[in-house]
Amino acid sequence: MRTLDWVDGAIELVDQTKLPQEVEILRLTEVPDLVAAIKRLSVRGAPALGVAGAYGVALAATVNDPATDRAAFDAAVASIRDARPTAVNLARMVDRVTPLADGGVEALLAEADRIRDEELAASLAMGERGADLVRELVGGDAPIRAMTICNTGGLATVERGTALAVIQTLHERGELAEALPVETRPLLQGGRLTTWELQQMGAPHRLLVDSAGPFLLARGAADVVLIGADRVAANGDTANKIGSFSLALGAANAGVPFLVVAPESTVDLDTPDGDAIEIEDRGPEEVASVRGVPVAPPGTPGVNPAFDVTPVGLVTALVTDERVVRFDDGEAL
Amino acid sequence: MRTLDWVDGAIELVDQTKLPQEVEILRLTEVPDLVAAIKRLSVRGAPALGVAGAYGVALAATVNDPATDRAAFDAAVASIRDARPTAVNLARMVDRVTPLADGGVEALLAEADRIRDEELAASLAMGERGADLVRELVGGDAPIRAMTICNTGGLATVERGTALAVIQTLHERGELAEALPVETRPLLQGGRLTTWELQQMGAPHRLLVDSAGPFLLARGAADVVLIGADRVAANGDTANKIGSFSLALGAANAGVPFLVVAPESTVDLDTPDGDAIEIEDRGPEEVASVRGVPVAPPGTPGVNPAFDVTPVGLVTALVTDERVVRFDDGEAL
Repeated sequence: MRTLDWVDGAIELVDQTKLPQEVEILRLTEVPDLVAAIKRLSVRGAPALGVAGAYGVALAATVNDPATDRAAFDAAVASIRDARPTAVNLARMVDRVTPLADGGVEALLAEADRIRDEELAASLAMGERGADLVRELVGGDAPIRAMTICNTGGLATVERGTALAVIQTLHERGELAEALPVETRPLLQGGRLTTWELQQMGAPHRLLVDSAGPFLLARGAADVVLIGADRVAANGDTANKIGSFSLALGAANAGVPFLVVAPESTVDLDTPDGDAIEIEDRGPEEVASVRGVPVAPPGTPGVNPAFDVTPVGLVTALVTDERVVRFDDGEAL
Repeated sequence: MRTLDWVDGAIELVDQTKLPQEVEILRLTEVPDLVAAIKRLSVRGAPALGVAGAYGVALAATVNDPATDRAAFDAAVASIRDARPTAVNLARMVDRVTPLADGGVEALLAEADRIRDEELAASLAMGERGADLVRELVGGDAPIRAMTICNTGGLATVERGTALAVIQTLHERGELAEALPVETRPLLQGGRLTTWELQQMGAPHRLLVDSAGPFLLARGAADVVLIGADRVAANGDTANKIGSFSLALGAANAGVPFLVVAPESTVDLDTPDGDAIEIEDRGPEEVASVRGVPVAPPGTPGVNPAFDVTPVGLVTALVTDERVVRFDDGEAL
């Protein structure tokens, strides 16, 4: 399903803070509403934020015509661009669309539509290429059991996503036995969001706690592990949600292919390898509570790495919107 | 601290269902109160249940004198024995104490005290032996950073415990830099109980989500991994809380010793190896919620293995109350 789009003169998006208990479609007709939605994480994920930002510029132009009210338009655009400072893709897409403001709302919307369609095309390409590779690696024609982590579906992009796009393509081809999402503590994107997306696409699935992944792999419960990526270093080392490394160890132990699915824009040739990637610690609060419920004594200290780095030696292949890189065959980026 | 004891004619125990938000000492003066406490898991762990059962028989004799009211006494004892049918140690210790009923409350209490003291002596022995081995394996004299899983401390026994007893002994010797408990989804015994015990003993610690363990090991954050055991097979394969296997893979990858600490009674020579151990699935509810809060869409299917099996090839050594078995040196049970 499309999780974010321009509908009848406004931005509509699935409010991710309400999932999975409620499916609420936010209809945003004013720029401050969009800014607030971005800030409270109702929309998240680099591609989705880029598309939201692009449509946000068009929304700004519907409220403050840049031809007659340029200062107000510019201020509104700046407020969108700054809504999440660390989200590079948000600023990048706002900056791509804004120069077309002289063409009015129609020109802005056309460019935002183009960005949305590029994201969708990338997801479709990753899904097709990834599903082909999974079939090749697993062999035979039995339906595939695919383990995955975090949320890499339409909620993080616009539709389909990255690793979850591969699972969706397998499902559409009738080649998916079941998806096995791990819940992905601390923020539980696997439990809250990926299960919901799998439900929406009617794909069979079973949820598991993160630490059950490597053991279930050892017991032969899955044919492949599929993950997304925050960043892929020049040598192929891959930074992704905490827990990815555990699944990579489990996949290697079980002799199961471990695939990274991510757009070309994730490849960072300026980072030589995983050792050069600094690991952000998000603080103990997320560990000591679950959705606001305390699960440890008050004030418990914690160590909370936001992501981990899987060395390229544990990665079978990288699947992007443009190519497959078979690290297991000695290919390089 | 002692988490369960006979105090002034009644059983007193820390109510584990209230931890870590409240520390409530239950004072049980009637047998039905003890049975209810066992059933709602206010007391858990094989050794603790054994001691609770033994004192329960003495409690039954204070209410219904077996010399004058044998039928009522026997009925009360049977109700304790059956409070948790799968807890073998509960029935075993009730059966050990009950034949002494002709000696009255004093004879029953003396035997229950003996059981309590045996458990404590076993914990002390495991702690000493384990701390010695950790120092030998790690070398040098720098303080130790020890990762652990689930709750293996006094709350599961009477005092000190198994793997956590080793950490406590290191701490008492001034040789503990920090404990690194993983939270242990789905039931979070690491987050709720182990952190609380570490607080009580004043030991430095930081909590982490389960899937961060293997990565932090790879980054050199710990010197040793210490786990308890549900069952150790004849070849040394070890069944323990789900997530133990992931930590074993992480420890092997990082070149860090992985120690199993458990009493001799855990060794099951009738089970040849881990493949002979059936893995119980506890159903999807525990995965789809955390302490009653839903973390997945309603009705999400799950796979929820209660424990996993770590093959002996990943276990450096087993530490019991009687011996150390160095699997890494080719020793066998």
